[in-house]
Amino acid sequence: MNQPNITGHTKLIGLLGHPVDHSMSPAMHTASYAHMGEDIVYLSFDVEPEGLEAAVEGMKIMGFVGANVTMPCKTFVGQYLDELTPAAELMGAVNTVAIRDGKAIGHNTDGAGFVKNLENNGVAIEGAHVTLIGCGGAGSAIMTQLALDKVAHIDVFNAKDQFWNATMARVATVAEKTNTPIDLHDLADLEDMKSCALKSTILINATPVGMAPNTEGCIPTEDMLHEGLAVGDTVYNPRETKLIKMAKDKGLVACGGLGMLLQQAALGEEFWTGSKMDTKFIEDSFYN
Amino acid sequence: MNQPNITGHTKLIGLLGHPVDHSMSPAMHTASYAHMGEDIVYLSFDVEPEGLEAAVEGMKIMGFVGANVTMPCKTFVGQYLDELTPAAELMGAVNTVAIRDGKAIGHNTDGAGFVKNLENNGVAIEGAHVTLIGCGGAGSAIMTQLALDKVAHIDVFNAKDQFWNATMARVATVAEKTNTPIDLHDLADLEDMKSCALKSTILINATPVGMAPNTEGCIPTEDMLHEGLAVGDTVYNPRETKLIKMAKDKGLVACGGLGMLLQQAALGEEFWTGSKMDTKFIEDSFYN
Repeated sequence: MNQPNITGHTKLIGLLGHPVDHSMSPAMHTASYAHMGEDIVYLSFDVEPEGLEAAVEGMKIMGFVGANVTMPCKTFVGQYLDELTPAAELMGAVNTVAIRDGKAIGHNTDGAGFVKNLENNGVAIEGAHVTLIGCGGAGSAIMTQLALDKVAHIDVFNAKDQFWNATMARVATVAEKTNTPIDLHDLADLEDMKSCALKSTILINATPVGMAPNTEGCIPTEDMLHEGLAVGDTVYNPRETKLIKMAKDKGLVACGGLGMLLQQAALGEEFWTGSKMDTKFIEDSFYN
Repeated sequence: MNQPNITGHTKLIGLLGHPVDHSMSPAMHTASYAHMGEDIVYLSFDVEPEGLEAAVEGMKIMGFVGANVTMPCKTFVGQYLDELTPAAELMGAVNTVAIRDGKAIGHNTDGAGFVKNLENNGVAIEGAHVTLIGCGGAGSAIMTQLALDKVAHIDVFNAKDQFWNATMARVATVAEKTNTPIDLHDLADLEDMKSCALKSTILINATPVGMAPNTEGCIPTEDMLHEGLAVGDTVYNPRETKLIKMAKDKGLVACGGLGMLLQQAALGEEFWTGSKMDTKFIEDSFYN
């Protein structure tokens, strides 16, 4: 594995959240920068929301290159930053911070990594009709990014659970601010889902259904996967979920969750340093 | 060179000061901890005195193991720390910070590294009579540490320059607080220096005289180097200064500045993590 050669010139990117010690990001981004010959390491810092202000001020004065922000800090950190990108602003959450000229700029790549992976697989985003299953953290970020990227219409399916009203409010806000028609549907109504899917050009699973160990799980039924549909899944374990396999068997464009993860990491590095991450190198080093 | 294998568990020690990018400490301490199998890296952060409060608060909340503090921050950082050791308190300067249970504790190893190196070479400190040449940053720290370590008497020689009154005040404070007799003399009076040296058990050069490229420089004259005297030098470039060579030629115990540097680094690691640095490994890796 590529390792940094630490000197007085070595710069730092942090990960803020709690817990963070299990995270793969320090090894991955450190190896990525070492592979590119950039003198930067990435370390995790266990910080809870009440420590964010001091952490951000400290990172700014100590000249960190930037940071990732993960749970439970993502929705709290924005108030301590100097600027937010439109994605971070609209999502009400920050997962990436760059420090430039002493200012902390908050960004969110949670949706952009997924969308970028679709684009890399030849899927047209602008003007697309999307069926999005799940509107939790990942689904909500993807919905917002798709709306920012000018899809024509989104049908969002979510469970009628205790978050239904909050989800309705979020859908309404994103729809209004991006001027995008978004309709919220009940996840339990598979007939409704089918009729939406058949009108869609993209279908996305943003629920954990299909994740190991329950790899037989899959919400969309085979008859929803019509010709010309592109299918995406946020689940990356297993690499090929039942949904992705079903789509591939039908000859459809199918984008698994790993590509989203890699693109999200790459967008982070681009935001921090303008670097183009070697995603193939990272995939081979960490996900084989 | 030993390099760390960075993961989400990797901890951090910082160096605060300005400038810091030329410092050898990041490479040295990172290699030392990797050599010991401890999951810690050491990075430098360019911070000026006005940024210290935010840096200290940030380090505490982000769970840094600790830090070194160098110019121009050493004399300013104490006010932002939770506790000071007696050495740091008396020196009015902090070069090492440990963060324990969220509290920042300031320490100063500038004098202790030198004294430890003398001890490691079999020189008795308690009850010693010392002639100390130079009372700038290094000399002042050494004077204070010797007084804390209960030498019997110190004759300090300093140039009668614009800092003479400040030096007098510092000598008086240390003498009073440690209850140690310390006399300040004019560096220009070599006869006076000789009579002090002949009564001393330890003679120390804490001026830059003898440092490359002016390696022929040496303040003490040969007739001061009497039998039984131990000689120390803070200069470490060249490894053997003219003073150290002269002392060795006379068969005296002679301690060059490199031993001080290594012991200072070792005392830092002990203060941060309780580790015993492998000074031989560091000397071989960085100073050969």
